[in-house]
Amino acid sequence: MTAPTRADAQALDTEDPLAPFRDRFVIHDPEIIYMDGNSLGRLPIETQDRIRSMVAGEWGGQLVRGWDEWLDLPTRAGVSVAALIGALAEEVVVSDSTTVNLFKLASAALDARPGRNVIVTEADNFPTDLYVLQGIARNRGLELRLLDVRPGERADARLVSQVLDEDVALVSLSHVHYRTAALADMPGVTAAVQDAGALMLWDLCHAVGAVPIDLGAARADLAVGCTYKYLNAGPGAPAVLYVRRDLIEELTQPVWGWFGQTDQFAMGPEYHPLPDIRRFLTGTPPIVALAGVEIGARLISEAGIGRLREKSLRLTDLILALHEDWLAPMGFDIGTPRSPDERGAHIALRHAAASDLCRKLIEKGNVIPDFREPDVIRYAPAPIYASFVEVWDAMEKLRELAQIA
Amino acid sequence: MTAPTRADAQALDTEDPLAPFRDRFVIHDPEIIYMDGNSLGRLPIETQDRIRSMVAGEWGGQLVRGWDEWLDLPTRAGVSVAALIGALAEEVVVSDSTTVNLFKLASAALDARPGRNVIVTEADNFPTDLYVLQGIARNRGLELRLLDVRPGERADARLVSQVLDEDVALVSLSHVHYRTAALADMPGVTAAVQDAGALMLWDLCHAVGAVPIDLGAARADLAVGCTYKYLNAGPGAPAVLYVRRDLIEELTQPVWGWFGQTDQFAMGPEYHPLPDIRRFLTGTPPIVALAGVEIGARLISEAGIGRLREKSLRLTDLILALHEDWLAPMGFDIGTPRSPDERGAHIALRHAAASDLCRKLIEKGNVIPDFREPDVIRYAPAPIYASFVEVWDAMEKLRELAQIA
Repeated sequence: MTAPTRADAQALDTEDPLAPFRDRFVIHDPEIIYMDGNSLGRLPIETQDRIRSMVAGEWGGQLVRGWDEWLDLPTRAGVSVAALIGALAEEVVVSDSTTVNLFKLASAALDARPGRNVIVTEADNFPTDLYVLQGIARNRGLELRLLDVRPGERADARLVSQVLDEDVALVSLSHVHYRTAALADMPGVTAAVQDAGALMLWDLCHAVGAVPIDLGAARADLAVGCTYKYLNAGPGAPAVLYVRRDLIEELTQPVWGWFGQTDQFAMGPEYHPLPDIRRFLTGTPPIVALAGVEIGARLISEAGIGRLREKSLRLTDLILALHEDWLAPMGFDIGTPRSPDERGAHIALRHAAASDLCRKLIEKGNVIPDFREPDVIRYAPAPIYASFVEVWDAMEKLRELAQIA
Repeated sequence: MTAPTRADAQALDTEDPLAPFRDRFVIHDPEIIYMDGNSLGRLPIETQDRIRSMVAGEWGGQLVRGWDEWLDLPTRAGVSVAALIGALAEEVVVSDSTTVNLFKLASAALDARPGRNVIVTEADNFPTDLYVLQGIARNRGLELRLLDVRPGERADARLVSQVLDEDVALVSLSHVHYRTAALADMPGVTAAVQDAGALMLWDLCHAVGAVPIDLGAARADLAVGCTYKYLNAGPGAPAVLYVRRDLIEELTQPVWGWFGQTDQFAMGPEYHPLPDIRRFLTGTPPIVALAGVEIGARLISEAGIGRLREKSLRLTDLILALHEDWLAPMGFDIGTPRSPDERGAHIALRHAAASDLCRKLIEKGNVIPDFREPDVIRYAPAPIYASFVEVWDAMEKLRELAQIA
């Protein structure tokens, strides 16, 4: 099989029904090939305008009366995200950071499973997930049991069942692995965990906005996720928090703040958490950072997660095909499961000189990927704004630089 | 004594050395008299520009490379705030919300005082402070002991000593009370608490940027505070977190996140908190909401906290004088300690119809104060942008409306 040509990539762009969405984003320098949308998504033009009007018009003009508009931003953003993850509108709120949301939900889940003393996560989960769970385990005197998922594998019911028993209170895994892009079997794992009597907490950071997610169909218990990656909500924008409807009133998170209080401005002396998803809010939300969440999520809805997924698989298929022909012979390897059912929206290109090559791609190639320890270059073409030609060019640059090296 | 006239107020404005600072803020509608700077401070022009360039230039243009600029925003903001609160540059960081910071520091403090089972706070402290401490007390099986501070009083060593004993692990109080503006005796209270072997956590929300604070001179242990009030950093901007230098490495907060990790991007499997103030960071900070903190704090430094305090006392003296002549005869009362040494930067005007009058001030008077249960109108003229004539006019409007009512 011959490697796809640049003309092939151009043809794919011509046929791409999502191509017009690129114009909804600020493209400051069209020469730069952005392969890092899974770290920080691009700036939507509408968000740029919204932040400007929020700052000048609402903060500057309305002053404290701006809160009439801002007070329900966390729930409005939640509604816009709910549509992308198979959740009900009332099951999602956007608040704090992924780290803090993980802390709140993991703590609440453990309180709901007294007597069980084990938390399960993947040994190679994203660092902040590991750290949060380590801290909770240490403070509560619990065991943190680590699941090994080998390269090329993904978390599924069979694998997870090996570490489940009646001591397990909570299992927390990433839906899409941050380095390998392995896509966990959400329905299978959730069912296995629940069969064992534990609660399941999904981290959607590298999944939301890039792959179809159906928390409702999986009857998932809890989830968190980033908004600044494939949702393009801006650097450090507040994070997704999901609790299944029937669990909301049953769970109480440990950071009791005034934004979770019933009748907040009555300022009563005792904490009575709201009976809805807002009980998982804490303090005053960072309004200007929240401005982009609703817009980013609506852009993804408009493009359609099904069409985005289809394009994403084609974009990453192109990476796999060019890797096969160009890179594999030079000692590269793929750190991502090959099956479309088992991978997310980025590809882990492994090479002993990955760190050096990554630096050169940025400095000499006008390509922005990122490097992850120990040997991974992540290529993440976000399907809402990346083109097939960009992917082809990014691979061509990598080939060139690897040949010189 | 005759009430000061509008001409008297104009004369004070003419002599005011801080008057030019008003031009550093966006004044969207000069007809509006803003008396709510202790809820949400005005928008500095420089912040408006900074957010615009951060969004368009850094996020839109630099994309993920923007992190080269953003990664130390929490510590840079901390340095700018440190100068205002008598802290060392390395003792302050800006992160999360006041609520989350309270949770982190109170939890860390309790871990450092094992065997002691009492937390002390004021019965009438700001709601989120009460709720956070209630949650922590409930989860740890501790007693939350409430200090009563009567109207017109302030927290001082004598009062606090009445509730201290060898069971107390932590005392948490507001430096300036959110409703009454009572100014606690920071050095006296801190010393009394430390003499009893407990740690002292100050909430600076209604103090920072408005009254001189010297955490260093008081040898205060811990503090948190808002940036969106007198620091004018924007709605829900992240919050101040202070830990005295010698305590930093001794304390570990419970939300173990990747922004507190040593060598964060090595992404090691075990949490090893940084040996400096960044160990109190958690997840990815909301960058666009952080943009205004450094600018807001530097503006206050430039005006000078001493000069601001002096003007603030004159502004509030004018409120007290006009109250005496105009309002007291109509059934108003002052809910704030009268002595300049015992009050912060706002005045609590008490009246049975306060809620209704507050609404009318906004709707008919072009005056924006706020109402606090059960009977308080807060007038908070922020000395960096409020004028004496504004205060005079705000009092005149209140007199008019109260006469009609």
